Amino acid sequence: MHELIEKLCLEFSNKILDEMADAAELNIKESRLAFSTDSYVVRPLFFPGGDIGKLAVFGTVNDISMRGAKPLFLSLAFILEEGMEIAALEKIARSIGKAAGRARVRVVTGDIKVVEKGAADKIFINTSGIGVITGPVGVKAKAGDAIIINGAIAEHGMAILNAREGLGFISGIKSDSTNLNFEVEKCLRASRNISVMRDPTRGGLATTLNEIAKTSDLGIEIYEKEIPVKRSVKKMCDILGLDPLYIANEGKFVAFATRKDAPRIKRAMGRGSRVIGHVVSEHEGEVYLRTKLGSSRVLPALERDQLPRIC
Amino acid sequence: MHELIEKLCLEFSNKILDEMADAAELNIKESRLAFSTDSYVVRPLFFPGGDIGKLAVFGTVNDISMRGAKPLFLSLAFILEEGMEIAALEKIARSIGKAAGRARVRVVTGDIKVVEKGAADKIFINTSGIGVITGPVGVKAKAGDAIIINGAIAEHGMAILNAREGLGFISGIKSDSTNLNFEVEKCLRASRNISVMRDPTRGGLATTLNEIAKTSDLGIEIYEKEIPVKRSVKKMCDILGLDPLYIANEGKFVAFATRKDAPRIKRAMGRGSRVIGHVVSEHEGEVYLRTKLGSSRVLPALERDQLPRIC
Repeated sequence: MHELIEKLCLEFSNKILDEMADAAELNIKESRLAFSTDSYVVRPLFFPGGDIGKLAVFGTVNDISMRGAKPLFLSLAFILEEGMEIAALEKIARSIGKAAGRARVRVVTGDIKVVEKGAADKIFINTSGIGVITGPVGVKAKAGDAIIINGAIAEHGMAILNAREGLGFISGIKSDSTNLNFEVEKCLRASRNISVMRDPTRGGLATTLNEIAKTSDLGIEIYEKEIPVKRSVKKMCDILGLDPLYIANEGKFVAFATRKDAPRIKRAMGRGSRVIGHVVSEHEGEVYLRTKLGSSRVLPALERDQLPRIC
Repeated sequence: MHELIEKLCLEFSNKILDEMADAAELNIKESRLAFSTDSYVVRPLFFPGGDIGKLAVFGTVNDISMRGAKPLFLSLAFILEEGMEIAALEKIARSIGKAAGRARVRVVTGDIKVVEKGAADKIFINTSGIGVITGPVGVKAKAGDAIIINGAIAEHGMAILNAREGLGFISGIKSDSTNLNFEVEKCLRASRNISVMRDPTRGGLATTLNEIAKTSDLGIEIYEKEIPVKRSVKKMCDILGLDPLYIANEGKFVAFATRKDAPRIKRAMGRGSRVIGHVVSEHEGEVYLRTKLGSSRVLPALERDQLPRIC
């Protein structure tokens, strides 16, 4: 066990972690910090475009980034089922190391618990993270805000479903799992008028927009024709009767900002980004979808997850 | 689900948590921080002297305190098995709220994941915590240091074993689960010469002392007759053939400090505390036990846990 821990730790070794104390000692000069936690229980552990380890790093990196913060430090806690294959565990550890390197965050403290066979499903991972807040980003949208998204939706959820069910009838769908921190940094440099940012993970874009509408006591209007969905993803959703607006993403985010700054933010986000809607003072707490046919309908919040264990 | 989350959150509500953002915004003026994480998988969920919720708060509070830090903020993440009794969950949430209140820490961010029946064992909890380092406490002991403990050992492990196996032949054994942060504060006020502090949880006092001896490249000598063990705990250990030195604690800690400051630290720890040994330059990386009979033997590190799922 001790040897295993040491071997795993080599994948994301750094001076602070290597002290192996009960708590890591950090030095952070800035006083406004973002702090976030998430557990990852995704199945299968490995899927096209990612794995549970990559997700665990980027998921928490992104939650911190959404607060207008630069993520710096992660904690990492494994719950392992007895009998979990060591090779798979090592592969996950390598993936964590690689993801942390790419996002330029350090794993500084950790924990491993082992439970008996049957008491867990192979591996669960928790990461918590600390970042330094640099932007003036809050939790509420403002009336008149434009809503900009950085790319096509529903890829993560459909990749997981495809891998899990072995459907295989549509190929080439990969999870969009990625770290958003550098993209967020660019947006914050491009505009000081971003009121809120969010990554639409579980529940998809529709659920995230509903939460923001509710928190902000404002309405949201989005335009179906502006929402980017890749052809293969659209096709798979159509066949299965799923709405891409409710499917999880792991590398997408929406920024709410003044209309004036929208083009600048779009440019900062790069190719594939779009202005998908606006915040309005009418229909408080609700999201309206203007369909391709020109009609308008309420887009409700998701009552229950379409897919369990998506992240 | 949404209603359940809101109801649970009421048990530890505060302004930061209530924003319900992806990441909490914290304001911490000090720059030296301690950061720690632990998952809790203890069985049974409720036991004499505590429950998984209390353990999850105090465990992380204590890990931070051991770094000479004042714990301030916690994250809280549940992994729930579908079908987990809501009443038990609420009881655990109440216990978390009460424990956080007692330790004066705030739960500021959280996560709940639900997995299907059979994929987990009712509930697992992860807490991560942030504290402000106030003491000059490091990770290495110094030659000549006295070792002071704040009370009797092995109560948590024996309480769990008693509750789990329904042995019931010895009554009155309770987990010592408690928050150590205020006791640590007192010690830090009493002495600026504490080199290292640790709470001997999994693996017990013997394992913790071995880790410190190894990290410090020094030897440790402890005196069996000075190590406090309650009569009922000793009796249960004797019957089961277990050594209390290897049994988990959840409310004990050892402080390593100059001999000169030892009496002051003992006083700060209060009734039940004892000087149990010293750090020596000989036998590097090893712990020696001077037995009640006057003989001396190596006290090895625990190779494997005597009891699984103890915390």
